[in-house]
Parts: sequence; structure tokens; C-alpha cells
Amino acid sequence: MAMKLDEDEGITMSQPKMTDVAKLAGVSPTTVSRVINRRGYLSAKTINKVEAAMHQLNYRPNTVARQLQSQKTMTIGVLVPTVANPFFGELTFQLEHYLFNAGFKVLVGNAENDIGKERRYLQQLLARQVDGLVIATHNHQQQIPEYQNANLPIVSIDRYLRATIPNVSSDNYAGGRLATEELIRRGAVHIIHTDSVERFNKRDYLRQQAYQDVMREHGLTPVTYKIDFNSRPDRLQAFFNRIFDEHPEVDAFFTSNDMDAIQLLQVARQRGIAVPDQLQVIGYDGVPTTTQIVPELSTIVQPLDEMAKTAVDLLQREIRGDQVAGSHKLPVKLRVSGSLR
Amino acid sequence: MAMKLDEDEGITMSQPKMTDVAKLAGVSPTTVSRVINRRGYLSAKTINKVEAAMHQLNYRPNTVARQLQSQKTMTIGVLVPTVANPFFGELTFQLEHYLFNAGFKVLVGNAENDIGKERRYLQQLLARQVDGLVIATHNHQQQIPEYQNANLPIVSIDRYLRATIPNVSSDNYAGGRLATEELIRRGAVHIIHTDSVERFNKRDYLRQQAYQDVMREHGLTPVTYKIDFNSRPDRLQAFFNRIFDEHPEVDAFFTSNDMDAIQLLQVARQRGIAVPDQLQVIGYDGVPTTTQIVPELSTIVQPLDEMAKTAVDLLQREIRGDQVAGSHKLPVKLRVSGSLR
Repeated sequence: MAMKLDEDEGITMSQPKMTDVAKLAGVSPTTVSRVINRRGYLSAKTINKVEAAMHQLNYRPNTVARQLQSQKTMTIGVLVPTVANPFFGELTFQLEHYLFNAGFKVLVGNAENDIGKERRYLQQLLARQVDGLVIATHNHQQQIPEYQNANLPIVSIDRYLRATIPNVSSDNYAGGRLATEELIRRGAVHIIHTDSVERFNKRDYLRQQAYQDVMREHGLTPVTYKIDFNSRPDRLQAFFNRIFDEHPEVDAFFTSNDMDAIQLLQVARQRGIAVPDQLQVIGYDGVPTTTQIVPELSTIVQPLDEMAKTAVDLLQREIRGDQVAGSHKLPVKLRVSGSLR
Repeated sequence: MAMKLDEDEGITMSQPKMTDVAKLAGVSPTTVSRVINRRGYLSAKTINKVEAAMHQLNYRPNTVARQLQSQKTMTIGVLVPTVANPFFGELTFQLEHYLFNAGFKVLVGNAENDIGKERRYLQQLLARQVDGLVIATHNHQQQIPEYQNANLPIVSIDRYLRATIPNVSSDNYAGGRLATEELIRRGAVHIIHTDSVERFNKRDYLRQQAYQDVMREHGLTPVTYKIDFNSRPDRLQAFFNRIFDEHPEVDAFFTSNDMDAIQLLQVARQRGIAVPDQLQVIGYDGVPTTTQIVPELSTIVQPLDEMAKTAVDLLQREIRGDQVAGSHKLPVKLRVSGSLR
């Protein structure tokens, strides 16, 4: 019997216990249990310490996985910059549609490009509220440590958070190529690309990279301007007026989103520049509401319906305990309309 | 002692107990408790029976109010037709902004003009999930019995649910007057009003009623056409084409929302009708996103920010146990732009 106990302790050495995590983190085992079970109010600092200790010891709370299973909230948190933007309104609508059909309720948070608000949301949600998260915000993930140690199913949309979090996006590189090649095919030579400043990481630069690759392949000079996502109309108008002043030769634009393209069309009209004869424009997004309001805009259409469906499928697989990761790129298409010759 | 018991029973006759409710409803006292405390899964039929019995006996679950107090979810359900519509996207954004500041999370449901989906949402939410509801859907409340016996704080936006539920709206009558008077002042005579079919109750007809009153005050003939809210662009275009065919004399439109006004501007352009020289247009809503995309549209601006703030204030007062009811109308203003002479 004593022999048996020693053997068990031998196993325990390689399979750390909750008390080992508690000791290393400098908290009580109850606190460790609360972190694992997302129970009660916990500070971000405590969650970080405990999750760092779990990580260091390679502690796997298998026994509590079953507990988690039994206390599912059947709620998913969706974080976007703002549902007032047509793109994120449509994305949230589509996500809610598929999540509702899968039996989930949806907590929506507008991060409002405010890192503090995004972190407060994450801390709340991570602590006890949801079975999983869909993240479509624009804030810099390196300033949000919660993403690095979140012990929760997450899917990100159009954004890289960390290697183990699956990312769903439209095929941004293909979209950038499609737009630029189409403008060249239709006779444009001085094509300018506008993009958002907040796009921090390599994946998000793919539209720009594709634009630059295609321009260089055709012996043309790429010119990219950047502006904050969701800038107010007066700032956007000043931005495009500056580009026209600095590049009077411009004969086409590929903009990183449709809201920017729409402001550009207004500036062109104010300046008496005829679209499409003097200036051709291709945007990016192709949200139904925007297309309904500005049907003349040619654009790269993101398959938002399919992106939402894919994100919900991936999240459900994560919740079931499957390992899913990697980049899930969905095909885009070009919508040809009045802003192309 | 027997005397004392009789006295207690005498009091019980006028102050009904949970067992009396259970007996009348034909369910167990535990079920009554679960209905009152919104615990566990309950069918709509059970909730209806128990709440009808509580109502009939005038049973007031004072003792359980404290229990409810202690199990607050700090979550509010927001039901809209779809957040993909710019008006409801902006409303949801503003509601979430004020609710977040008040410490609440927001569950968003898109009813998608589907009575079944709205009822499934309500049953879930009423059963156990939220401290209160903000309802901004368009479905017919008489087909949704959950609103008649919901024992939960509710605020409705721009819609009448029942006498005890406070309603927040822009001043629809003043908005209708303002639009119609402005068109007449600017020389229009053949002014047509378009409205949504789904606006069922008197409060929602106020824009139309104001239009008709102003027209008659000026000796003009009111003409109102109706179409489903959130109709697809092709249906909206056919709708406006029919109006132009049937009323070639039309020189102005007052539309019940901006999305309709935007489709109207497109149809006018297709038909070669010059705006504002031949046709003046005033919409309704004035959401920032829409105004950014179509700055030439004149419109009645609803104070969505103030409406959301008011709704959140009222809801918090209801949650604290205050009696709040009635219609809370917020002032509108006219945005004058290119679609007016």
C-alpha cells in the first residue's frame, strides 16, 4: 500500500496538482479553481498570475473540464468596434443568426476603438459570462494581455490574435490583386491605394501587399495613403482632398473599405472630377446595406454570411474541445458597377 | 394559539399565498416560485398560466423580490428587427454605450420580422437570463402574449406594448408636422407620404397623422402609400416607380425613413427627375452613418443618443422597483440639405 502511494506521488510530480499552481501563483487553491471555472469576480492580475502558473507547470485541468461542461452559459460574446458601422452591423447580424440557430445567445460589445473598454469587456467575459468569444475589434492585441492567456474558445475575424486562435477572413490578398488588376485592365495607370492605420499585423496588410505586388508586376509605382478606420466625414474629405492635391495625375483608387470609397466619390463630385471617365474607384466590403445606398460603387465583396457561418462552426468545434487554429480565408468576388469604365 | 392561526389564515384570505397561485394555475408551488424567480426552463404556457393566476389573485411576490435582487444578471436584452439596418445599428450602439457605463452587458437579438423568433427570444430571456429588456422590434404585439404578462422591467422604443410599459420615441407628430410644413413652405403642393405597413398602433401612425393634418390645414389632399419596412431594393424601386406612374404631378415626398428616401432619390435619378428642382424630399431618422453616405438627403433627425439614454434611465428605475410608464417623446429637428429647394 505504501508502495502504491509512492507511485501515485511519482505520477503527481509530472502531473501537477491545483495546489502546485496555487503555490506558484501565490494564491489559494480556491482562487485557482475560480479562475479555471470562471466563477465570481476576479481581477485581471489574479487571472494572469494563475494562468501564467498553469502555463509554467503545464497544468491541465482535465477534471474540471467536466464541471465547465455542466455550467455552460450558452452565450457567446461578440466584440466589434461599433455595430453602428454597416460592415460590423452586418457581421453582428450574421453571427447572431447562426449562433441563434445553434442555440446560443449573443452578448455584443462595442469596443469603440478604446483599448480600456475592450479589456474591461474581456475581463468580465473571461471571468464567468460566456462559452466563447468572436473578436472583430481593431485594437492592438499586444496591448491586450487577456488574449495571450485566455483559457476560452475564441475565433477572430480578419485579425491575428495568437497562433492558437483561429482567424476567419476574406482572402485579402486575392481581393487586393483582383481590385488592382481590374483597374489596370480598364486602363488605369496612376492607381492610389488607401488603407487603415490600425491594421497592425502582417495578415491585415495583405490587401496593400497585393496592390503593391500587382503595381510592380506592371511596372507601375504603388502609392499608399493611410487614415484611421471610422474617421469622421470631415477628416476623410480632407484626407482625399490632400491626395488629389498631391497627386493630380491619379486616375483610380482602390480603397480598403466602402465607407472611405463613398467619401472619395463625394470629394470627386465636389472637385468636378467625373467618375468613371476621369477617375475609377473600387472599394472593399460590399455589405448589402451599403450597396443598397450607393449602388454605383464597384467593390470587392466579402462573403460575410459565409465568414459568420465559418466562425460559428469553428467556435462550436473549440467548445467541444477540438483543436482548431490557423487562417480560414474565404473567396471574394468583384462587384462591377458605375464607378468602373 | 389556535386563535392566532385563525387570524393568520384570515390575513391569508386577503393576502394570497404562493400555494393559492399554484392551486389556481394547476401547477406546483415550486413551479410558481420558478416563474417568479425566472429559474430553469419554463414553457410559455406555464408562465402564462401562473402569471394569469397571480394577476387574478392580485398576488404580490414581495418576499421573493429580495431573492431576485440578489441574483441579478447585470444583463439587458435588446431586441431589434436587425442590427444590419443603420437605424437599429446606431440605436443598439447607443444603448450598449449607456448600458455598459451603467454596468450592464447587452444581449442582442435580431427578430428579423419573425414573430416566432421574437417569441423564442422572449421566452428564453424572460425565463432566466436578463434583468430587463429594451424592445425595438416591429412585430405585432398582440401576437406576442409574452408582453402582456411579462413580470420584468421593459422599455419599448417607438412602439406601444401595453399601458404599464414605458415607451421612448422621437416626437413623431412634431416630426411629421415639421417635414410637411417645410415642404409646403418651400413651394410643394403635391406632397406624397410613404410609410411602413408594420406600424400597427396609434402611436406609430403619428407621422402620417401629422402629415394628413398639415395637408388638410392647407387645403391640400393627403396621399399616403405603404410598404413593408426593410423591403429589398428592387421592391422599393418598383414601389416608387408605381407612385410616379400613378401621380405624375408629385412635387415632393415625405418618407417614413431614410432608407426609403434614398431608394426614392435613385428612382428619381433613373427617371430623369431633377432633385430638388422638380422633386423635393424629406426623410426620417437622420442616423449619422446614413447622413455620412448620403449627405444631400434632408431629413427629420431623431435624437437617438438621447432616446437611448432615456431608455436606459427608465429601465434602471424599473429595475430599482419604481413605477414608470407612459410615453417619453424627445424633440426632433430638421436637417436641411440638397434635397430641398
